[in-house]
Amino acid sequence: MKVELAENERLDDLGIKNLKIIQNKEFFCFGIDSVILANYAKNIKQKANVLDLGTGTGIIPTILCGKTNLSKVIGVEIQEDVCKMANKSIQYNNLQERFKIICDSILNLNNYFRKNTFDVVITNPPYKKKDTGIVNPTESKTIARHEITATLEDFIKIAKDMLKDKGEFYMVQRTERLVDICFYMRKYKIEPKEIRFVCSKPGQSSKLVLIKGKKNENDFLKVMPNLYIYNENGEYSREIKEMYNN
Amino acid sequence: MKVELAENERLDDLGIKNLKIIQNKEFFCFGIDSVILANYAKNIKQKANVLDLGTGTGIIPTILCGKTNLSKVIGVEIQEDVCKMANKSIQYNNLQERFKIICDSILNLNNYFRKNTFDVVITNPPYKKKDTGIVNPTESKTIARHEITATLEDFIKIAKDMLKDKGEFYMVQRTERLVDICFYMRKYKIEPKEIRFVCSKPGQSSKLVLIKGKKNENDFLKVMPNLYIYNENGEYSREIKEMYNN
Repeated sequence: MKVELAENERLDDLGIKNLKIIQNKEFFCFGIDSVILANYAKNIKQKANVLDLGTGTGIIPTILCGKTNLSKVIGVEIQEDVCKMANKSIQYNNLQERFKIICDSILNLNNYFRKNTFDVVITNPPYKKKDTGIVNPTESKTIARHEITATLEDFIKIAKDMLKDKGEFYMVQRTERLVDICFYMRKYKIEPKEIRFVCSKPGQSSKLVLIKGKKNENDFLKVMPNLYIYNENGEYSREIKEMYNN
Repeated sequence: MKVELAENERLDDLGIKNLKIIQNKEFFCFGIDSVILANYAKNIKQKANVLDLGTGTGIIPTILCGKTNLSKVIGVEIQEDVCKMANKSIQYNNLQERFKIICDSILNLNNYFRKNTFDVVITNPPYKKKDTGIVNPTESKTIARHEITATLEDFIKIAKDMLKDKGEFYMVQRTERLVDICFYMRKYKIEPKEIRFVCSKPGQSSKLVLIKGKKNENDFLKVMPNLYIYNENGEYSREIKEMYNN
């Protein structure tokens, strides 16, 4: 499938089964966090219907489609230009039958789906609070990075609405927000069941955290061994290399 | 100072400045978790007045007195027999002027102190919920291990009442209860500021977690590098050895 690239757009090779993602250097480009999150969730059941909140360029569903036989994946993205790119990537990768984009705010999802519809909700939400850090002048990047259009609490509340009973929730976030995550997940009855901290190297403190939760589940948390991005020699760790190799 | 040991009591050397703790093998005996927690908190300000909730044999205040110049430490313990042992250890270690025991439930602390009294609250509370795990037939051990007389929420609520504005809270708990910890600390306005996971060895998942919180503080959590009890050769790690060496 051929697609036409607009100005500033480029076609990036994911290094996974020849999948490509169209990105625009003026917008937010996906990072290793999305790759790690998609791999963290890759053992979900093949028949699951999956919702990705704030899908951006569609990176997470694209990797999931590459690594699994999932056939019912919905990505929601508020930014029209970004949705256009995601749809072009879907065409390019020939994923039209498996992965669809809804171009709207996650706050409007109740207009598209009944409650308790999805087996899995996955999200790489904006990390930063509206009033913290350097606010990027390009609006598109700001929306992807800061809680401009929806807060972490919104993402978790919507996930709860959309998930079936015992449905699974996967998220990556900044480690500094772990208390927010635990507080809001407990509040909205998606109990955190597993946490995995991501560290740049062994011995360093964690900057990112992966969370797996389950709706209406009992409390009992497992904290897994850390995921290291680099080994002590500064090369990608074995685990990260494996993410790109199958 | 000589003290008389009752039947089943023994005098255990802490390996720190010749301090000893009297324990009864029929009761709950302190573990490495208390040693780790006391060391985690040893940099508190020397003039702080400190409250240890559920002090047991007084192990945490005793180590703190050994490693710091603290002079105003209160330990609260509900079990009379355990309080007697703690008071004998205090005499033995000649800490009467620095460390005092209140023999009562933590739920009654409002009868002893006004709110907002302490600079630091420290606690190694019961880890297990009332209805989980094997309930030890000896009541004393059960009270120390299970939430019989007070729940985790009670410990955190009392800590909040007793702490001054910006006062510090230190706790060790089972990692599986991290969500409870975050939820109740946020609820009672003791914001978790730092977490450190304790693992038996590198590469293993964490069973214990150290938490430092601050009353009425902004949210921003730091997750520190893991503390390993053993190194890969099965010996105590350098950090653990240092806890016993000064």
